[in-house]
Amino acid sequence: MILSALLTSVGINFGLCLIFFTLYSILRKQPGNINVYAPRLVAEGKFQQIDHFNLERLLPSTSWVRSAWNLSEEELLSISGLDAVVFMRIFIFSLKVFAFAGFVGVFVLLPVNYLGNQLDLDFSDLPNKSLDSFSISNVNNGSNWLWIHFCAVYFFTGVVCLFLYFEYGYILSKRIQCFYLSKPQPHQFTLLVCGIPASSRSNFNESVEDFFKEYHPSTYLSHCVVRRTSKVRALINDAEKLYTKLANLKSEKNQHKVQRRGFLGLFGAKVSLQEHYEKKLEDIEDNMRLEGSALAGKEVPAAFVSFNSRLGAALALHIQQSIDPTEWVTERAPEPHDVYWPFFSASFIQSWIRKLMVYVTYIVLTVLFLIPVVVVQGLTHLEQLETWFPFLKGILSLTFVSQVITGYLPSLILQMFLSIVPPIMKMLSSIQGHISLTKIELSACTKMLWFTIWNIFFANVLSGSAFYQLSVLLEPKKIPTILAEAVPAQASFFIAYVVTSGWTSVSSELFRLIPLICSSVKRLFQVNDDDDTFKVPEIPYHSEIPRILFFELLGVVYFFLAPLMLPFLLVYYCLGYIVYRNQLLNVYASKYGTGGNFWPLVHNSTIFSLLLMHIIAIGIFGLKKLPMASYLTIPLPILTLLFNAYCRKRFLPTFHNYPIECLVKKDTEDQNDPSMADFLDKLVTAYRDPALMPIRYFGRIHGRSNPLLHSDEY
Amino acid sequence: MILSALLTSVGINFGLCLIFFTLYSILRKQPGNINVYAPRLVAEGKFQQIDHFNLERLLPSTSWVRSAWNLSEEELLSISGLDAVVFMRIFIFSLKVFAFAGFVGVFVLLPVNYLGNQLDLDFSDLPNKSLDSFSISNVNNGSNWLWIHFCAVYFFTGVVCLFLYFEYGYILSKRIQCFYLSKPQPHQFTLLVCGIPASSRSNFNESVEDFFKEYHPSTYLSHCVVRRTSKVRALINDAEKLYTKLANLKSEKNQHKVQRRGFLGLFGAKVSLQEHYEKKLEDIEDNMRLEGSALAGKEVPAAFVSFNSRLGAALALHIQQSIDPTEWVTERAPEPHDVYWPFFSASFIQSWIRKLMVYVTYIVLTVLFLIPVVVVQGLTHLEQLETWFPFLKGILSLTFVSQVITGYLPSLILQMFLSIVPPIMKMLSSIQGHISLTKIELSACTKMLWFTIWNIFFANVLSGSAFYQLSVLLEPKKIPTILAEAVPAQASFFIAYVVTSGWTSVSSELFRLIPLICSSVKRLFQVNDDDDTFKVPEIPYHSEIPRILFFELLGVVYFFLAPLMLPFLLVYYCLGYIVYRNQLLNVYASKYGTGGNFWPLVHNSTIFSLLLMHIIAIGIFGLKKLPMASYLTIPLPILTLLFNAYCRKRFLPTFHNYPIECLVKKDTEDQNDPSMADFLDKLVTAYRDPALMPIRYFGRIHGRSNPLLHSDEY
Repeated sequence: MILSALLTSVGINFGLCLIFFTLYSILRKQPGNINVYAPRLVAEGKFQQIDHFNLERLLPSTSWVRSAWNLSEEELLSISGLDAVVFMRIFIFSLKVFAFAGFVGVFVLLPVNYLGNQLDLDFSDLPNKSLDSFSISNVNNGSNWLWIHFCAVYFFTGVVCLFLYFEYGYILSKRIQCFYLSKPQPHQFTLLVCGIPASSRSNFNESVEDFFKEYHPSTYLSHCVVRRTSKVRALINDAEKLYTKLANLKSEKNQHKVQRRGFLGLFGAKVSLQEHYEKKLEDIEDNMRLEGSALAGKEVPAAFVSFNSRLGAALALHIQQSIDPTEWVTERAPEPHDVYWPFFSASFIQSWIRKLMVYVTYIVLTVLFLIPVVVVQGLTHLEQLETWFPFLKGILSLTFVSQVITGYLPSLILQMFLSIVPPIMKMLSSIQGHISLTKIELSACTKMLWFTIWNIFFANVLSGSAFYQLSVLLEPKKIPTILAEAVPAQASFFIAYVVTSGWTSVSSELFRLIPLICSSVKRLFQVNDDDDTFKVPEIPYHSEIPRILFFELLGVVYFFLAPLMLPFLLVYYCLGYIVYRNQLLNVYASKYGTGGNFWPLVHNSTIFSLLLMHIIAIGIFGLKKLPMASYLTIPLPILTLLFNAYCRKRFLPTFHNYPIECLVKKDTEDQNDPSMADFLDKLVTAYRDPALMPIRYFGRIHGRSNPLLHSDEY
Repeated sequence: MILSALLTSVGINFGLCLIFFTLYSILRKQPGNINVYAPRLVAEGKFQQIDHFNLERLLPSTSWVRSAWNLSEEELLSISGLDAVVFMRIFIFSLKVFAFAGFVGVFVLLPVNYLGNQLDLDFSDLPNKSLDSFSISNVNNGSNWLWIHFCAVYFFTGVVCLFLYFEYGYILSKRIQCFYLSKPQPHQFTLLVCGIPASSRSNFNESVEDFFKEYHPSTYLSHCVVRRTSKVRALINDAEKLYTKLANLKSEKNQHKVQRRGFLGLFGAKVSLQEHYEKKLEDIEDNMRLEGSALAGKEVPAAFVSFNSRLGAALALHIQQSIDPTEWVTERAPEPHDVYWPFFSASFIQSWIRKLMVYVTYIVLTVLFLIPVVVVQGLTHLEQLETWFPFLKGILSLTFVSQVITGYLPSLILQMFLSIVPPIMKMLSSIQGHISLTKIELSACTKMLWFTIWNIFFANVLSGSAFYQLSVLLEPKKIPTILAEAVPAQASFFIAYVVTSGWTSVSSELFRLIPLICSSVKRLFQVNDDDDTFKVPEIPYHSEIPRILFFELLGVVYFFLAPLMLPFLLVYYCLGYIVYRNQLLNVYASKYGTGGNFWPLVHNSTIFSLLLMHIIAIGIFGLKKLPMASYLTIPLPILTLLFNAYCRKRFLPTFHNYPIECLVKKDTEDQNDPSMADFLDKLVTAYRDPALMPIRYFGRIHGRSNPLLHSDEY
């Protein structure tokens, strides 16, 4: 890619961003769009509606930037919880890292690269210069200038590790602070106990009570055995669908009464349809009453066990309960509304098989996904495109078209394919057998991260077939050389990727195109918006975090290879910082959190990026005929791994558990709290399966259609 | 190697065993040898001395075999503890496995191998037949007979896994049983707490008390801060040496009084020497008194903390204490006399560096050890020997000599080299920073095992230089083929190895040649045996277990390659079973145990053997032009790993910790025990550093030499 093509791409994307930002600042002020651009505020009733029309509404403004900028971390914490803070810390951390890297890269490495003449490129005008003349490939083989790169790699690694260390500590302190500030919550006092052994003398309910009364007599409070509710759940789902249809029918009927009183035939049919639905609904109800206790669910060998203190729950969590460690397995309980109930419908063997299948599917998906990527790769080579589609030759010879195609289209198509992956990953994770929605989110996030790194980075770098890539893994000795040859060659692709995919993703996040279209369509066709269906969206961490981390990986890897990327990356992180703060303030709500547990993933991903950079450095110094630098780089990954080992020891345990220090402090505070007795009473019913809660649909439908039945039954 | 050479080797070794066994059965009845052949019984005062001479004493007998055979497992448990039982279970397990394998191998695989004609060996007389005609190499390429080997591999793996599963469960039940039967012991109630944070306000002693009184108020009992005692220890060592010298001088003096009263000059010199030593001893004593509190040792940020119940200690062990998990790190305390005190003289950073150095040394040792092995390998090829030492040509042409050299000498030399390795490994493990002698033993055992497998198995199989071997690891794809080519080729070497090294090791274990010689020399020169220096030896698990496990690895790997090995291996295990039971009954005593923690190592080693067999099977079916069998073998290692994962989950946790079930049961029992109050009182002083205990040497010396000083000071 030449410099002018890059500049075209930058220009297009900068323009697009400007347009999006301007449109956003106008559209957000229109009253019709508040559900799109400020659903969180609407839900909280904080949005002051301006109904009177004024000119200001049609002018672009930057007030939203100011309010997003002014948002303090404490406010963010109180609004969106710890996970949002961690999410924003990724931006702050990346900005710090790449501000430093950008300075070193642009003012030290870039001139060194540009002054080399290894590539023997003609010294024609600057716009037609290949981007490669700004990369390490242009430094002469065996040149002592490479020692500057060598020092930069060491120095950069040290700085990143320093930032990582302090950031880990900072987020840990935030986590502890949140715990100290938290009100007593059911999940702090409760464990999920799985693998309750079957006993011929007593049922699970009695077993649990006997066991915990015997072995945790001073701390055990109550328990709630989980029941298999998949049948009830299915029936409720049917009922729910029928209810929605009925409700729609009725609202239509009301409208028809006014508008289409003439079409009696049609109306009659509608009434019979309504009766049909009501009949069905009654059937379901009868069904549920008849099967009665059978539906209430077979007991599952799992129970939520509550304790009278946080310490009691923690002690019971950590100690092995039974001689057979596969029995009485304890696990921290999630928040009650965070429990993923369908999980419990699977037996142990079922979930084992499911997990295995999920892993296999994940691997297959990762490998098969390469096919569209290869096609996309083809698009970046104009010659190949011309051989494939000869009729395009005329269009492709236009400079502008060819620049758009090489600079923009490939990453857009890739982006489209990638957008369908996160839901798939989330589905896979939910099949896997996690007990809570947050764990599913976390697991999907990890899956997405490795999927992204493998499919975007390695697939583009190694190109060729999937089997070739796998075979690289079987020859570890050659990996540095292969990567050192392939990675710098893709520098211009990834610079363009940052500009197109990165910038576009941020501005489209701000603009919320799809919700905007949906909302507009609804308003256009006057679809009745039921209040029930208005939901404040949650931020999809499992698709956002991997993307941000992937750009970080690109930045780290290309820091010394092609420092030209760093300014564009800095722009991405600056935009992202403002936009996501704005979205967290206005759009997204958080229902439950992981307690900052996304950070270890960020840490691991950064360490992986550093290691990858080191391996490439080892390879590239070898290729550049500076073997001494190559050998001297070998301690670097080892030191990085030692640093990582230390961080795992120093910080990670506290991300998984709260230490006794914190637990005792909180428990002592609670002892003086008069509301604790009330709270502990409520604990007993906190973990009832919602499927077994009193059912609301029938009552509501019957309240309108069949008062007799209603008063009889409810 | 040809059959007759093997038979020669078997003959020689069988003869040697017979001689050893006969000599043993005579020598053990001589009163002078009781310290060699029954030190345990002597120490326990159970040995009934027969002083009158009778003819029976000079006749070989088999009574010892009968008594060793009749020893029940309960008796063994009460005599030598759980580790001895686990040790004997290795033999029982191996006997079971190889009885099955031997049956299949000799009656199914051996005929199949022999009937093949791939190697195209001349059908001359049986004695000159190469051993290869009994191995899988002789089966025709692509022959369907190979499916029998395929089935045997699957079937054998299943059987071994079944045995492994039941054995793991059996040893776990023994472990729990031992715990239930145990008296209250200090280490069950005590934790070692490391990383006590330094505080400006209080010393470690106060910090520990404050911390545990705050966070474990109901269970904390007492504590004992560890002190740095390396200086005291050094002084005590000096004193000890001087004391021994003095004691020797005095006893010599007494003898001289009787025998050499004439040599006055010499005597006078001796007296002055004695005075010199006494002066020195006094100096040391003065030193200790002067430095006083400084010597009592700087406090180390570690303490033994005792609790009033086993459950209390376990709960404190498992929960994270502080927000910083590198502070207040808890660890199970070893038995008081099992503590490796020198460990505490190192700071955290020191032990970190030590650990790193130990690993590096271990790797270097493992690689350098290959040099003698390569020399030994050279000896097995007569032609090479003749080129190296041309003058030996005449001797080497004798059939008998050449048979001895090829069949016996190589493994003997190897054995000699190997015998110096276990002490080195133990030394490395003690430097590594384990807090107890049992952990050092366990760690040394693991080190020895991998050392043995790498240096004997892989070095012989892959031969060539060490670097070649390492480079194999970097090309994982080729491993099965390389192993499949190399391993069967070494079958005859390893058959000879089993016969020579295996059988010899067992008979020399029984005969105890070196202690016998030492004892004879002592008696010959009438060296005065001080009662203090008579020690009952402990069984060196760290050198015995890896050897036994290595033979198991050979058996598993060669089961389907060269089943001819299995009968010899069975003989080895039968001999070992009887001999080691006899030794545990008469010779070895156990001071402290790991609580059966050697078994997980045995399990892992067996799983590794199975995996190695599978990899070789995959390679060999490929080489033998039966790719279908090769592909169908691939699930086998995966299934084995899944089985291992299950076992790790099912059994391993209970080997590391006792579950709450057991702890509560024991604690409840103790509540009714009136002696518990007394026991808990003694707990306070149980973990005092022996170096800080009242010093005995001075008193004893001064008691004889300087009564005044003695009565003053002590």
